[in-house]
Amino acid sequence: MITRPANWFYLTGFTGEAGALVVSLKGTTLITDGRFMVQGHEETSSVRIRRQKESLFESVGGFLKDLRVRSIGFDPTHLTVSQLQSVRKAAGSQLRWVPVTGIVESLRMRKDSGELAQMRKAAILAGEIVKFAIGLLKQGVRECEVGAEIEYQMRKRGASGPSFETIVAFGKRAALPHARPTGKRLRKNELVVLDLGVILGHYCSDITRTVFLGRAPKRIRVWYKAVLEAQAEAIAAAKNGVACGDVDAAARQVLAKYNLDHLFVHSTGHGLGLEVHEDPRVAKGQKRRLEPGNVITIEPGVYAEGIGGIRIEDDVAVHASRTEVLTRAPRDLIEL
Amino acid sequence: MITRPANWFYLTGFTGEAGALVVSLKGTTLITDGRFMVQGHEETSSVRIRRQKESLFESVGGFLKDLRVRSIGFDPTHLTVSQLQSVRKAAGSQLRWVPVTGIVESLRMRKDSGELAQMRKAAILAGEIVKFAIGLLKQGVRECEVGAEIEYQMRKRGASGPSFETIVAFGKRAALPHARPTGKRLRKNELVVLDLGVILGHYCSDITRTVFLGRAPKRIRVWYKAVLEAQAEAIAAAKNGVACGDVDAAARQVLAKYNLDHLFVHSTGHGLGLEVHEDPRVAKGQKRRLEPGNVITIEPGVYAEGIGGIRIEDDVAVHASRTEVLTRAPRDLIEL
Repeated sequence: MITRPANWFYLTGFTGEAGALVVSLKGTTLITDGRFMVQGHEETSSVRIRRQKESLFESVGGFLKDLRVRSIGFDPTHLTVSQLQSVRKAAGSQLRWVPVTGIVESLRMRKDSGELAQMRKAAILAGEIVKFAIGLLKQGVRECEVGAEIEYQMRKRGASGPSFETIVAFGKRAALPHARPTGKRLRKNELVVLDLGVILGHYCSDITRTVFLGRAPKRIRVWYKAVLEAQAEAIAAAKNGVACGDVDAAARQVLAKYNLDHLFVHSTGHGLGLEVHEDPRVAKGQKRRLEPGNVITIEPGVYAEGIGGIRIEDDVAVHASRTEVLTRAPRDLIEL
Repeated sequence: MITRPANWFYLTGFTGEAGALVVSLKGTTLITDGRFMVQGHEETSSVRIRRQKESLFESVGGFLKDLRVRSIGFDPTHLTVSQLQSVRKAAGSQLRWVPVTGIVESLRMRKDSGELAQMRKAAILAGEIVKFAIGLLKQGVRECEVGAEIEYQMRKRGASGPSFETIVAFGKRAALPHARPTGKRLRKNELVVLDLGVILGHYCSDITRTVFLGRAPKRIRVWYKAVLEAQAEAIAAAKNGVACGDVDAAARQVLAKYNLDHLFVHSTGHGLGLEVHEDPRVAKGQKRRLEPGNVITIEPGVYAEGIGGIRIEDDVAVHASRTEVLTRAPRDLIEL
């Protein structure tokens, strides 16, 4: 039983936002509500579409009862406690419920050549948008204005939208790794963090660049150099067969050398694909090894409350014997 | 234990995307990760902020263990099966877990005057954007172009973004109640469904208008009249003390009179506030009674595969002795 939209899209092409997919030896059935029936028929093939009668999970339970299967796999990281309760009740006591995590996600982790081709396009577009956005950075401009222009350009250039809410953070606000754009105006001698991504042909990209308005003081230059070096080391480490935790450690070690590791408050990266955050996680202690077809972000940063932050992020694809950087935008410190 | 972002924002003002809030007689604590520490301190007051050490739910469990409370409420409609398992394990066997649904949601349902003032602004802006969008409807324009212009204008006029992915559906695609904008171009004699909303000052609006490019044929006029009448009846029914199911029935009865009720494939409306879909649900059989401060959408529609669809949607606020329509845009059939 598949209840995560990106997973049912991966398996069937259905882009609706509500439903559940049941895959059994007797065939594949999508249960959804009236809003998505026509869309379900148009977007899928060899999938039976059933319209839910009661609540979604009561309908799925009723369907499973009629299907007369003995056991059903569900992902406990997707289903809420209430959903499981409701679908179990409706399915009757004969059915065995088997928790299984990440089956479709593990398929999605290994991108095929068609997916990689799409992800290259999404990454290149993100780089172009970053260059466009840097052109908007002038004294007095507001974070939210830059954010609006960025997302408009994404659409104008073919994206279906941003892959996450665009981050535009000026000055001290750059110390917030997930800052939402505000009405704050850009002033001389401030850092700017731009973190954005597009969804293009269903696939996501994600890129970050940090810019200084004015001539950067020595401390900022040193920090920037440290983050850039940390990123380069992590990219170099991101090879087929290497544990994700070791990629994270490569970035962290460089920052430790500069005594900045305590300012690196998040993990080094994450998988990227139909969703902007997916497996594998590139974080401390992660034992999962990179495989050909994995696409991950590498995005170390340092953040100092009251001063600002610096982050540099690119997307990389792991191949059997090489690693490909998908995003293309200059990485050196830009002083405007 | 509160794990839904809109709920913790409602209680504390924290806008971060990850974390958990624990409210006890000993005080309020937000547990979150390194990305949101600074933001947590800036946005809240009288809230202790703790940085998670392990996974979020392991950290929350550990915190609850140290807190030495006897029982803890959780919402089974928010927590996944895995999250509950993980937090219970970390909290130890002494703690009693009490499922409680919708406590904060029921507070959020009754908007106070400050919230209503904000929602009026969000609704008015949505109406202005609809008028702007109608101005873009010319032969040959693409759905995705109109979508991009709409969301850009929202930002330009102060919204933090759309409250959901804008729906722009031309011709046969208007039969899909949740159509994503595509490259399809507008042609003469096609229906256009525009369904959009903004987030302004954290509050959502939601409006739909249907337009015909050319002179609408008789059948479309009759359908439009039926939907408009269904909407008017449902708005008239949406009074303090009336069951939500009766508001839904009011719309459905009008469409039945026109023999169109089988083409109305979704519910009549939904609550609106910090989230674009919240309580109360305005659907068949809903026994919950409307109360002063409720804000709901009223959005009946008819959808015919191969032909198109018609939907008219407005936002209304229920007061003690009157109902206020928040959205302002003409409702008569517009022929361009």
